[in-house]
Amino acid sequence: MNTWNVYLSGEIHSDWRKEIKNGIEAEGLPVNCTAPVTDHPASDNCGVDILGDEEKDFWKDRKGAQVNAIRTRTLLEDADIVVVKFGEKYRQWNAAFDSGYAAALGKKLIIMHPEEHTHALKEVDAAALAVCQEPGQVVEILRYVTVKE
Amino acid sequence: MNTWNVYLSGEIHSDWRKEIKNGIEAEGLPVNCTAPVTDHPASDNCGVDILGDEEKDFWKDRKGAQVNAIRTRTLLEDADIVVVKFGEKYRQWNAAFDSGYAAALGKKLIIMHPEEHTHALKEVDAAALAVCQEPGQVVEILRYVTVKE
Amino acid sequence: MNTWNVYLSGEIHSDWRKEIKNGIEAEGLPVNCTAPVTDHPASDNCGVDILGDEEKDFWKDRKGAQVNAIRTRTLLEDADIVVVKFGEKYRQWNAAFDSGYAAALGKKLIIMHPEEHTHALKEVDAAALAVCQEPGQVVEILRYVTVKE
Amino acid sequence: MNTWNVYLSGEIHSDWRKEIKNGIEAEGLPVNCTAPVTDHPASDNCGVDILGDEEKDFWKDRKGAQVNAIRTRTLLEDADIVVVKFGEKYRQWNAAFDSGYAAALGKKLIIMHPEEHTHALKEVDAAALAVCQEPGQVVEILRYVTVKE
Amino acid sequence: MNTWNVYLSGEIHSDWRKEIKNGIEAEGLPVNCTAPVTDHPASDNCGVDILGDEEKDFWKDRKGAQVNAIRTRTLLEDADIVVVKFGEKYRQWNAAFDSGYAAALGKKLIIMHPEEHTHALKEVDAAALAVCQEPGQVVEILRYVTVKE
Amino acid sequence: MNTWNVYLSGEIHSDWRKEIKNGIEAEGLPVNCTAPVTDHPASDNCGVDILGDEEKDFWKDRKGAQVNAIRTRTLLEDADIVVVKFGEKYRQWNAAFDSGYAAALGKKLIIMHPEEHTHALKEVDAAALAVCQEPGQVVEILRYVTVKE
Amino acid sequence: MNTWNVYLSGEIHSDWRKEIKNGIEAEGLPVNCTAPVTDHPASDNCGVDILGDEEKDFWKDRKGAQVNAIRTRTLLEDADIVVVKFGEKYRQWNAAFDSGYAAALGKKLIIMHPEEHTHALKEVDAAALAVCQEPGQVVEILRYVTVKE
Amino acid sequence: MNTWNVYLSGEIHSDWRKEIKNGIEAEGLPVNCTAPVTDHPASDNCGVDILGDEEKDFWKDRKGAQVNAIRTRTLLEDADIVVVKFGEKYRQWNAAFDSGYAAALGKKLIIMHPEEHTHALKEVDAAALAVCQEPGQVVEILRYVTVKE
Repeated sequence: MNTWNVYLSGEIHSDWRKEIKNGIEAEGLPVNCTAPVTDHPASDNCGVDILGDEEKDFWKDRKGAQVNAIRTRTLLEDADIVVVKFGEKYRQWNAAFDSGYAAALGKKLIIMHPEEHTHALKEVDAAALAVCQEPGQVVEILRYVTVKE
Repeated sequence: MNTWNVYLSGEIHSDWRKEIKNGIEAEGLPVNCTAPVTDHPASDNCGVDILGDEEKDFWKDRKGAQVNAIRTRTLLEDADIVVVKFGEKYRQWNAAFDSGYAAALGKKLIIMHPEEHTHALKEVDAAALAVCQEPGQVVEILRYVTVKE
Repeated sequence: MNTWNVYLSGEIHSDWRKEIKNGIEAEGLPVNCTAPVTDHPASDNCGVDILGDEEKDFWKDRKGAQVNAIRTRTLLEDADIVVVKFGEKYRQWNAAFDSGYAAALGKKLIIMHPEEHTHALKEVDAAALAVCQEPGQVVEILRYVTVKE
Repeated sequence: MNTWNVYLSGEIHSDWRKEIKNGIEAEGLPVNCTAPVTDHPASDNCGVDILGDEEKDFWKDRKGAQVNAIRTRTLLEDADIVVVKFGEKYRQWNAAFDSGYAAALGKKLIIMHPEEHTHALKEVDAAALAVCQEPGQVVEILRYVTVKE
Repeated sequence: MNTWNVYLSGEIHSDWRKEIKNGIEAEGLPVNCTAPVTDHPASDNCGVDILGDEEKDFWKDRKGAQVNAIRTRTLLEDADIVVVKFGEKYRQWNAAFDSGYAAALGKKLIIMHPEEHTHALKEVDAAALAVCQEPGQVVEILRYVTVKE
Repeated sequence: MNTWNVYLSGEIHSDWRKEIKNGIEAEGLPVNCTAPVTDHPASDNCGVDILGDEEKDFWKDRKGAQVNAIRTRTLLEDADIVVVKFGEKYRQWNAAFDSGYAAALGKKLIIMHPEEHTHALKEVDAAALAVCQEPGQVVEILRYVTVKE
Repeated sequence: MNTWNVYLSGEIHSDWRKEIKNGIEAEGLPVNCTAPVTDHPASDNCGVDILGDEEKDFWKDRKGAQVNAIRTRTLLEDADIVVVKFGEKYRQWNAAFDSGYAAALGKKLIIMHPEEHTHALKEVDAAALAVCQEPGQVVEILRYVTVKE
Repeated sequence: MNTWNVYLSGEIHSDWRKEIKNGIEAEGLPVNCTAPVTDHPASDNCGVDILGDEEKDFWKDRKGAQVNAIRTRTLLEDADIVVVKFGEKYRQWNAAFDSGYAAALGKKLIIMHPEEHTHALKEVDAAALAVCQEPGQVVEILRYVTVKE
């Protein structure tokens, strides 16, 4: 393994991805991070922006979700490790969907969430090889699995 | 195909599974339905009941979720069609996880949810071959795909 | 093999499926045939009939094609042998799509078409283990592969 | 993902591939495009040119289609994204075959065709994550999925 | 699922398999149990008994292990659930090998062992969906996953 | 496993298949045997008989081999155990091809051949879980792996 | 595709591999060739040379064939295209075994053999996308599939 | 193959990995070696060190084993060849688990162990393409399979 591919799925309203990337850079780890588009309006509108307007929200959402899926499924399938963060806001069904998708593909799953979600996320956690709360823990895991001798 | 296997995932607080099964029986469709354990307390406690107590909720939940996974992953992998219902209450990350798991395995996915969840569930819907609101629509789909000539 | 599963894909405007089924019955072959819905209006309208109207033809067609896909992909994936007939009328991209889908899954492919289509169908034919013109030839192949000693 | 592999299948009688490649180059996208041989006579004759003459067109076509398949199936299986263009002329069963082949392999499918083909291509479209009309839209999708943050 | 297939791997010097089978029968569970040959001398000698003597123990053992593998790999690959028991005696590398084989195939793994082996078996346990000590617990799990509503 | 599927590949000029089937019947083993068409002229001519004459032997042979492949690949892929017999006559590349095909699919392979072929068949034997000389040994193996306790 | 991997299997008693490599180099094709060990005595003796002597030829051959399999199966599984040459001498079951192994993995298969073997090799040829006689034809195919526009 | 990936699993209490790496370097072989963390205390404690303390040894071990699995399963799945060494001490169920995991994935397996373990390891050995005693033999095999012509 020259480089480990890590897909960072889930919450897009805090800077947790940046913290992990900074940690990876600071440690000089052989890790390449990928992510969904985290520009929320762009992500919501990409379907109609590129493929034409829709009157119904259902089809606007479907067009957008499908364009995003071209990116997210490819990156997720290409990853060795998938990290999924559940934040405090929103329903985040997208994050849980990605967790299930990754689990079925045998990806190594790391789940991050506040302790208050422990019961609600128990099926998701049960598919993970690590459950943690902070980006720093993800960096520690990545250091351990990629360069520790 | 003598029999189609359909796994009914998701919400366990309404009688939607029974409505679908009644519809299948009334139509005499060649469909065998399976489901997770829908007795909520039993589902929460199966891990510690069988494998011994835990002081921490995290491990109680893990033990239970893993025992449930023996059942749910086997039935889901054995299914031709997976129906997932999102209700109005609870976070239902489990339902979204099952949707992702089913999608990655190439299962034919039917998603049921109230229209108010359209935007929040757009990634899940985008993986589905049908999105509907009522159990009767699922029965109609099953009739069409299994016996219509 | 107690029973061979054969999926009959393609043209829905002649009675070729019935000829094959009659031949199988007359010979008493251990073959179970499946097919898409061959009621053309039902096939076109199943999406909006079950899941609600659409103003745009594009979405009406998508809804219908996706409901049909629940059936056709399941039956095709379940088949040992896939027979695809290209008729003289229509563009029949659906038939060519099914041929590619079946080829990628390693299904044993039998293609039926009039000789005039030989050049236009050369990539499809090249993925087939038999290319023929008449339903009777399909029956002969099925007899040979299932019961000849 | 250092580079995304995109296979450009379908119509060979317009310069749509060149437009997409120009767009990729202009945007500096990390995308590598591949394609079938687009020299029509070479594609038709490669079998007999290399492997020896045939009297019957059927075998000439088969030899050629099989040599082309060495290339096209390898490139298609190696692709992350498969773009298929249906033009206005010819029957283009080859394009529909490639669409089905790509769909069965779980490739991310983008379909381009004039709106007049919407109904005839509904099963092909239903397997796609994006349906569009112009090469520029493909470039926009590629930009969005490969470099947007 | 009409019947769940459960492969009982590991220790062959106690009657744990019989206890599980008795429990399944007493509860009337839809479970079919399979197992390796538990006649120790037959298992050691099957290779040379059927395929001819060997002077070197290494080849005698190889012949026997390969004949046993015809049975054990087939049954394990056919199982929905794999139960592996580690006893107190012998090195039981065979049991650990089966656990790894089952884990890589995505089988639902239940591990039984005395608590004293917890540390030594931690990698094996980490691949399991349930870890227990007694045959009765396996029966309880099987009852829960196969017939509980 | 209610029934084990065993495909009997290779030599078609002696009655070894019948000996194995008789042994299975005499022992009452839960084994279902399948085989290629063993009527040599029918096997050679099935392609042109059903699909039309060819002037060149190459295409006559291809048509026939492809029709036979519909049968043999299906049965081989459906088998739990594949037995391949190499006789004393003919080149039997077909038998070696089937051995490689079965090995790549992870089938449990039993090879039968006279000892004089040991060196020439070493790569084939190296993929097998048992190498023997007589049909009776195959029956003994089948008895051991299917019903011994 | 930056580089196409081509595995050259089969006959080791003529310089056909060198002719193909020379052709590739002369044309500057983006092709990387691999091959089994073609030093016949080394190939026969590698097992006992490295892992210790055997009295019986059967085990000497098995040890050697298994060591060679570490190389050949890895390279064959890594290849995009597999070329197999059948020469005039020896039984070459190894070449036919590799052909079957490659076919089951969906590799693009090119078979080379003298015309006199057409009937005996018909099942092998039927799995190939090209059948030819001369190394120069393989180079022409490789040029066509890798660099022709 | 530019580089062969070799995963060195098993015993962590002698310097056998270093001997193999030295041999590879001395011979200049195109081989990249990977391994689990061989710092025993770090390996035992990584779970609780990164993810928080546990009172019960069972959960401490599970947390650690799961973090290690992120590394070991990824490297093992990425390997072409898996070498597993069984030493004289400890139960080494981990080594046997890895052997089974590798075997199920079709990895090329080389097993090293003292001759005294021949009988106890017979099922593990039976899944291997080479069984040896010394690191030097592994280097010889790697030289033969990667660079011998």
